[in-house]
Amino acid sequence: MKVDGRPYRTIWLAEDGWSVEILDQTRLPHRFAVERLQGLDAAARAIRTMQVRGAPLIGVTAAYGVALAMTEDPSDAGLARACDLLLATRPTAVNLRWALEGMRRLLQPLGDKARRQAAYARAGSLAEEDVALCRAIGGHGLALIEAAAARRPGERVRVLTHCNAGWLATVDWGTATAPIYLAHERGIPLQVWVDETRPRNQGAALTAWELGHHGVPHRVVADNVGGHLMQHGLVDLCIVGTDRTTATGDVCNKIGTYLKALAARDNGVPFYVALPSPTIDWSLSDGLAEIAIEERDGREVTHLTGATADGSLATIEVVAPGSPVANYAFDVTPARLVSGLITERGIAPASREGLAALFPEQASAESER
Amino acid sequence: MKVDGRPYRTIWLAEDGWSVEILDQTRLPHRFAVERLQGLDAAARAIRTMQVRGAPLIGVTAAYGVALAMTEDPSDAGLARACDLLLATRPTAVNLRWALEGMRRLLQPLGDKARRQAAYARAGSLAEEDVALCRAIGGHGLALIEAAAARRPGERVRVLTHCNAGWLATVDWGTATAPIYLAHERGIPLQVWVDETRPRNQGAALTAWELGHHGVPHRVVADNVGGHLMQHGLVDLCIVGTDRTTATGDVCNKIGTYLKALAARDNGVPFYVALPSPTIDWSLSDGLAEIAIEERDGREVTHLTGATADGSLATIEVVAPGSPVANYAFDVTPARLVSGLITERGIAPASREGLAALFPEQASAESER
Repeated sequence: MKVDGRPYRTIWLAEDGWSVEILDQTRLPHRFAVERLQGLDAAARAIRTMQVRGAPLIGVTAAYGVALAMTEDPSDAGLARACDLLLATRPTAVNLRWALEGMRRLLQPLGDKARRQAAYARAGSLAEEDVALCRAIGGHGLALIEAAAARRPGERVRVLTHCNAGWLATVDWGTATAPIYLAHERGIPLQVWVDETRPRNQGAALTAWELGHHGVPHRVVADNVGGHLMQHGLVDLCIVGTDRTTATGDVCNKIGTYLKALAARDNGVPFYVALPSPTIDWSLSDGLAEIAIEERDGREVTHLTGATADGSLATIEVVAPGSPVANYAFDVTPARLVSGLITERGIAPASREGLAALFPEQASAESER
Repeated sequence: MKVDGRPYRTIWLAEDGWSVEILDQTRLPHRFAVERLQGLDAAARAIRTMQVRGAPLIGVTAAYGVALAMTEDPSDAGLARACDLLLATRPTAVNLRWALEGMRRLLQPLGDKARRQAAYARAGSLAEEDVALCRAIGGHGLALIEAAAARRPGERVRVLTHCNAGWLATVDWGTATAPIYLAHERGIPLQVWVDETRPRNQGAALTAWELGHHGVPHRVVADNVGGHLMQHGLVDLCIVGTDRTTATGDVCNKIGTYLKALAARDNGVPFYVALPSPTIDWSLSDGLAEIAIEERDGREVTHLTGATADGSLATIEVVAPGSPVANYAFDVTPARLVSGLITERGIAPASREGLAALFPEQASAESER
């Protein structure tokens, strides 16, 4: 997507043809900084410190990390070391494991000399595949926004989203934002409600940043506000992302998603979840019972970093000193609250039957296990 | 309640016998500061800038504000000016209007010379009445906590609350917290989930502060977390406050209350609202249609003040610079989502009949209008 008129992706091959450049997302929204990764260690650090985040982008960065490692040491030992180091950066990220296993399977049979070129080619094609998936999701979701626009001719379509399932979480387009960017391209007037998304504020810091710099009209709201907006008819539809989806359509996404889904149901607002099919875990059938929710450092709740009036960055404590904190990172929205799953193949009902109809080969592979 | 062992109230007559002292709540949780109000303007500013907040405390502060005004100008014009100025400080607070109307009714018939003393006497008795109301609410709510304790013997009772309906929002005891403080006094083991309550963080800053300094076990959670807690059986009951309650039991409270009520209903968790009867607006019968929701300065969302590592206070921007913000301060929780209204006379069903049964004189007075 664009940053003040200039197209960007979140990761790309540098002009030297071998090093890799990323947007340093830990510095957004206050600093726009490109960082050059010149080796395995830099790639691992970028994932670990969340300079890159979002499941799809983590996978692509890990693949480029292996490519960088093959420049340094293309031996069997070098390949093993690269995969082990990268896998340990975010132990729970499913895409990370999937991308690294793919790289290992591809490179292991090759001779040392062929590995480097093959690794770069595969990392590049992973990136292109991610762009294509997101673009396809956008095309299917666009129909929802067009339908909403047709219901209120001449009015803005009001879309509410939670967290950042934007282009910053992928290589380009994003998942939840792909329909939004496409609708914006088509000239459909929009008003995106951006949930702040405490505690890490990915909505206010990242989604608002990317929508603003691309030129999409939006307003940031505290996480508490969505219910009120929906009660008063100010939301036409919700579109959120997901970190993990069960074969039955339960959605594990950033904490707070469930509350917005409840408000949507209570007010008859459609609630859609956008996802590339690799985030479907076909082995799961009950998100609430089967998905363990990560509890993260309480400091994410007690402390916030932002820009002071003079432009410097400062970290402040915002909770009563000494008060203990619980910091659950995700919640599960049951399929019964989800109007539909926007995938690269179309919009599926949030049910085992709905997903199986769009992805029969996946569903049958799982049932044969 | 106590602050590190020493009893405090939120407002009291200073030792000089005429000026009024308050806890400056804008400086909590990082500074514990007493501020002296020496005139009408100071009282109005204290309400407007939220040095004092919470419907009951606003009412008492307004009454003292009139008393301070009668020291300055006890004429009819002075009385009218004082009431007008104070009424304009916070549009949503029904207690404010109630307290000021009471003062006006009391003082108008009196001669200029009698007004000052009568005003102080009435403000003082309002404060004592508020303490008695809250203590009575606590007694009725205590039964709910005792019942929850009996259901899980030897386990902590897990109470979720939103915003600050604590003693800092009243003169003492609080409304939602009165049952909690009483249960704590009785030795019932508790675990209070404290919603952060963006954008002003009154939960994390005030409720956590008062519970912590009084010694009540609690944990702060982001506003997004309550639904997840209820899905996993980690909440025994919710108790929140209210700024305004309709005669039919609709509850206007801090933004986000509605979302927690939805989660409570979806998970079979009892959802109680604690209120002194003056917060009931007997003229209203449809909270969603009839209560205008205050929209506040977006800077409350974009900027946060807190303590840096060296203990100094800093204000930081936490939203993407330039992104617009919507800052609705309250929402309405429909009566259908409320398990009961904990009043000073007992727990009423959230319905016109339920409230009329406990407050027949009020209900009939309204129906005769």
